[in-house]
Amino acid sequence: MIKVSVIGATGYAGAELLSILHRHPEVEVAHITSESSTGKNISELYPHLRGIYDMTLESLEDIEKIGADSDFVFIALPHGHAMDVGKKLENLPARIIDLGADYRFNDTEIYEAWYNVEHTHKDAPRVYGLAEIYRDEIRKAKIIGNAGCFTTASILALAPLAKHHLIENNSIIVDAKSGVSGAGRSPKLGNHFPELYDNFKAYNVAHHRHTPEIEQVLTDLGGEKILINFTPHLVPMSRGILATCYANLKPEISAEMIDAVFPKMYGNEKFIRLLGRNAYPETKFVRGSNYCDIAWHVDERTGRVIVLSAIDNLVKGAAGQAVQNLNIAAGFDESTALDVVPMYP
Amino acid sequence: MIKVSVIGATGYAGAELLSILHRHPEVEVAHITSESSTGKNISELYPHLRGIYDMTLESLEDIEKIGADSDFVFIALPHGHAMDVGKKLENLPARIIDLGADYRFNDTEIYEAWYNVEHTHKDAPRVYGLAEIYRDEIRKAKIIGNAGCFTTASILALAPLAKHHLIENNSIIVDAKSGVSGAGRSPKLGNHFPELYDNFKAYNVAHHRHTPEIEQVLTDLGGEKILINFTPHLVPMSRGILATCYANLKPEISAEMIDAVFPKMYGNEKFIRLLGRNAYPETKFVRGSNYCDIAWHVDERTGRVIVLSAIDNLVKGAAGQAVQNLNIAAGFDESTALDVVPMYP
Amino acid sequence: MIKVSVIGATGYAGAELLSILHRHPEVEVAHITSESSTGKNISELYPHLRGIYDMTLESLEDIEKIGADSDFVFIALPHGHAMDVGKKLENLPARIIDLGADYRFNDTEIYEAWYNVEHTHKDAPRVYGLAEIYRDEIRKAKIIGNAGCFTTASILALAPLAKHHLIENNSIIVDAKSGVSGAGRSPKLGNHFPELYDNFKAYNVAHHRHTPEIEQVLTDLGGEKILINFTPHLVPMSRGILATCYANLKPEISAEMIDAVFPKMYGNEKFIRLLGRNAYPETKFVRGSNYCDIAWHVDERTGRVIVLSAIDNLVKGAAGQAVQNLNIAAGFDESTALDVVPMYP
Amino acid sequence: MIKVSVIGATGYAGAELLSILHRHPEVEVAHITSESSTGKNISELYPHLRGIYDMTLESLEDIEKIGADSDFVFIALPHGHAMDVGKKLENLPARIIDLGADYRFNDTEIYEAWYNVEHTHKDAPRVYGLAEIYRDEIRKAKIIGNAGCFTTASILALAPLAKHHLIENNSIIVDAKSGVSGAGRSPKLGNHFPELYDNFKAYNVAHHRHTPEIEQVLTDLGGEKILINFTPHLVPMSRGILATCYANLKPEISAEMIDAVFPKMYGNEKFIRLLGRNAYPETKFVRGSNYCDIAWHVDERTGRVIVLSAIDNLVKGAAGQAVQNLNIAAGFDESTALDVVPMYP
Repeated sequence: MIKVSVIGATGYAGAELLSILHRHPEVEVAHITSESSTGKNISELYPHLRGIYDMTLESLEDIEKIGADSDFVFIALPHGHAMDVGKKLENLPARIIDLGADYRFNDTEIYEAWYNVEHTHKDAPRVYGLAEIYRDEIRKAKIIGNAGCFTTASILALAPLAKHHLIENNSIIVDAKSGVSGAGRSPKLGNHFPELYDNFKAYNVAHHRHTPEIEQVLTDLGGEKILINFTPHLVPMSRGILATCYANLKPEISAEMIDAVFPKMYGNEKFIRLLGRNAYPETKFVRGSNYCDIAWHVDERTGRVIVLSAIDNLVKGAAGQAVQNLNIAAGFDESTALDVVPMYP
Repeated sequence: MIKVSVIGATGYAGAELLSILHRHPEVEVAHITSESSTGKNISELYPHLRGIYDMTLESLEDIEKIGADSDFVFIALPHGHAMDVGKKLENLPARIIDLGADYRFNDTEIYEAWYNVEHTHKDAPRVYGLAEIYRDEIRKAKIIGNAGCFTTASILALAPLAKHHLIENNSIIVDAKSGVSGAGRSPKLGNHFPELYDNFKAYNVAHHRHTPEIEQVLTDLGGEKILINFTPHLVPMSRGILATCYANLKPEISAEMIDAVFPKMYGNEKFIRLLGRNAYPETKFVRGSNYCDIAWHVDERTGRVIVLSAIDNLVKGAAGQAVQNLNIAAGFDESTALDVVPMYP
Repeated sequence: MIKVSVIGATGYAGAELLSILHRHPEVEVAHITSESSTGKNISELYPHLRGIYDMTLESLEDIEKIGADSDFVFIALPHGHAMDVGKKLENLPARIIDLGADYRFNDTEIYEAWYNVEHTHKDAPRVYGLAEIYRDEIRKAKIIGNAGCFTTASILALAPLAKHHLIENNSIIVDAKSGVSGAGRSPKLGNHFPELYDNFKAYNVAHHRHTPEIEQVLTDLGGEKILINFTPHLVPMSRGILATCYANLKPEISAEMIDAVFPKMYGNEKFIRLLGRNAYPETKFVRGSNYCDIAWHVDERTGRVIVLSAIDNLVKGAAGQAVQNLNIAAGFDESTALDVVPMYP
Repeated sequence: MIKVSVIGATGYAGAELLSILHRHPEVEVAHITSESSTGKNISELYPHLRGIYDMTLESLEDIEKIGADSDFVFIALPHGHAMDVGKKLENLPARIIDLGADYRFNDTEIYEAWYNVEHTHKDAPRVYGLAEIYRDEIRKAKIIGNAGCFTTASILALAPLAKHHLIENNSIIVDAKSGVSGAGRSPKLGNHFPELYDNFKAYNVAHHRHTPEIEQVLTDLGGEKILINFTPHLVPMSRGILATCYANLKPEISAEMIDAVFPKMYGNEKFIRLLGRNAYPETKFVRGSNYCDIAWHVDERTGRVIVLSAIDNLVKGAAGQAVQNLNIAAGFDESTALDVVPMYP
């Protein structure tokens, strides 16, 4: 049994993490924190946890003590706040899995440009926390910068094509759609029920912060600089992301060559389900699970490949991915606590 | 390890059963059947099961063979069809858990009157499958008539009041609301997405078939004949039932007496969460789980008690209840495979 | 052409009022106000009004000036605020239609008890603004206290039964369900999209403020004191109310006697559509319109009548009703601007 | 007053047409037809029309008689069926507005290739029914092939850019999202409520039949052959389309040049609302109305323009457009019956 703590347990990702950890036979949750609800029981904030978690929320003022009492510390805070925690835990044995953006970028200038925040922990020993691509690096990492939700869906869809140089570098467009839980639990007019219900919209066109994250990994995989367009949309539903990814095929690339690279890269991946060419992932087919379902289409008329991928934004896009990273880092079976049937219908 | 089979695996209850059984360490699924999809793989019909269940649907023509190869047989067929299966398995050791109505009634004339079907297995050795009330009988039963979805929510809400004679017998009104999955997977205009979305309606007023089921159990508990009004409504959501139950308090019954009987009856029940007086269950707080959340309100102005209960219609209202009954009947820990955190949000 | 102003134009009822008034050939909107958004254009707050309303929100500090410039003043403020406006306009010719609760009660002590606010305009010359019942009084009224949303659905369902003494006075239970727009436009956790979506719950059991309003009118109609139970629920949809109303029939009352009183009372009502016995109103059948659809069921087993009624909470439950009252008070055809086909699907 | 008939009145587009025509002061609905429901009253099929339309559905067997009795005939049949009607009405004065695809294509070979149906009325005197682009041709047309829903949103978004040659011809990608009413009223598993609710998916990637329609008009506007990628998605809501359109800017094209062409083309259009650069249309802002809201974004990092457009698929994408075409063809004010405030929230 190892001990883990969750810093920022009252957001949707934090609560999902608690749900998953409840199933984990090797993990004990030692501390959970919330600055706005310190002293309250987590089940007051999340009544679905009544009778399951009977824990009091602490403050992260005592982060060193919490860190000393933990083998792993999950951080589920808004960006800009994990760096402080990371620095304070630098010299403790506790390892860190950050669900936010602070530790995702190799180049902290890119982070600073897109997030408008000074990076204060530039030399942190960190790896990008997307198991299917950086599994080996994750094993020993001190700090794991857990991949973002849109990012996970987008990268997993495009990685085989970028890695094997089948597509034109700067032709990539990712048109992504997310359920509303991705926007967090703070009420605001934009997420007020009557405003969003029976409604659909785009947001942050050309400026969403997951853009450079996708570019970083695709560039890394293919070895050549890649710029993309990424457009997020809000779907009137709670959970789930579908990414529709477009790219121009390089000359002479056939549908069969596309068909080949997906199983080549993901053939042994537990959490990637390849539906094949001309199939259609649906967000509900992965809801509540750690799966990423992927399918692809080749349009010979226009010379493009269209890749579709679906994840649950709170699981494979956040808490599930974090536990997958924990399992790798701690040496557990990678699917421990994650072998869950999606909830349908 | 025991072997179980699922007759009628392609409805929503059948698919939910497979999801739950996947988590059950003591159970192997031996056979699954579907008459309309015989020969197909279950994951063709339910793509969320890809990579999880790789089983071919058989026909129930071979039910004796299936029965001989099973310790327990779950039946998830429309009412009227389980009796045939029950009779064919009569002399085999396999025990039966029927998710339909055929084996729920002590008095088969009531069944025949409400279902317009002749009961052809009147002497079947059966018990009503609601663990919190008939646990002892379930232990040894040959045939368990799993309680219905609306029924479970309604009975659990009212049982302590009926049992302890705190309410006027014929004053009970149950106004219940269900997600659409309760109506099954067969497409029809009434459940066509654009018709139901952003819409709310009642149906089967004064004639819903769960009415006599609720009356049977409340009458049994209190020892006096009880007639109720039961009104179901369709909520534009997938899962969940909320029952709002009204009854006139007998003279001299105080709120504190109400407060006392709920923990008295359910204090040790794993799957009943008592939220207490003046609280509010929400269907999402139990979604995907086997919990029944209950709260109550006493209106001194009108002399009524209002009890609210919430369940997931496919879990505690169907497949979860069935596995709970299996656990009791097979001698497993009652919460095996059912210790699941509700999916929120 | 008459001139009207809308005090509190930025709530959902205020915005709906503007939508309806846009269709009114006899009305010019002179002033619209908002304290939180004074100086802004209404289309900044409601982009669906772009190109339709190009008006600046004023402050109600100048209410006397606004009143002097208006034939009718609609007030769409939270309760407790209309009384101030009412008093300030007391000596002006402008007539008032208040969409809130301040002017709905004959007995201001009841208002004070349920709203926890002192009533400061007890002698206001006011009528209850439900046209189908108080049409004659509305014609000449200085102040019209527009009926509430739940109230309208409940009263219209039960009025013929109460008026003709067909039901036991204190047996009435109204179990009502509303879309979320009824809760207003202010974001809060309870109405945050991910919390409500795929969720259903009751609220304010035994304490909702529409209870005494329903009691007042039913008591008035039948001439005997009536107490009821009223339970509101939140449906995960934007608009619409369905009220399920239960009452015990008096001895010897037949289904045919029930059938007779509805057309007797509502036979000439433009906005009440009687679907008849054993029918089912759906909220979507009236969405966006001023209709109230009503059907009833008689349960001979239990001796109860169940009446179902459906309205759009923002139209017949608020802004449409207000315009209907305006039409009556100003001497226009009662359906002016309200002859709208419900939006389906 | 002119007389119009609706062939195929029981689909969603037909019913919407009836709703709009109810508001039209110059139009009398003479005949409505349905082959599956001949002899029934339309309000049996659409209870929201009770008390509004009291008309019996006829058969189109008598189409010549219906045509002789009509100034305009709207056809709302599945593709392949309007051609028969069109030929039978060829020598009658009645003019035709077809809401399907049969008369949309200049090149019937393209129709035949994408629809797998022989075109049997190749020489029909027809125009493409998108008023903002072909208004003059519509005025005198015998047959108007009303533009499709996805097509309308896509073409209106891209037309100014194609016409003024600001974008690379073959770089266009339209990623479109539609509410479920676009799929029609026939129940099937894919549109069964529990399957779609809380779910999101793409369909018909690279093969949707609106693709060549968009290409035809953009090619016509720019004078050079254009091929596009068009991807439709299903949003779990009833109504509304959002199109997210991507194109590579030609060299030297600035954001200001983009800003200029939209008002240049649409400055006088009643039903196009330009939100400007960096704005965000939402489907709910146009719900129930004939508006098309458009905004655009320029990504200098990647050299692309992203145009967003929103319509109500049943109004501007079908029935509203048809009435707009009627108004033009009959010489009425173009906005007659269409000056409707969108329904919000």
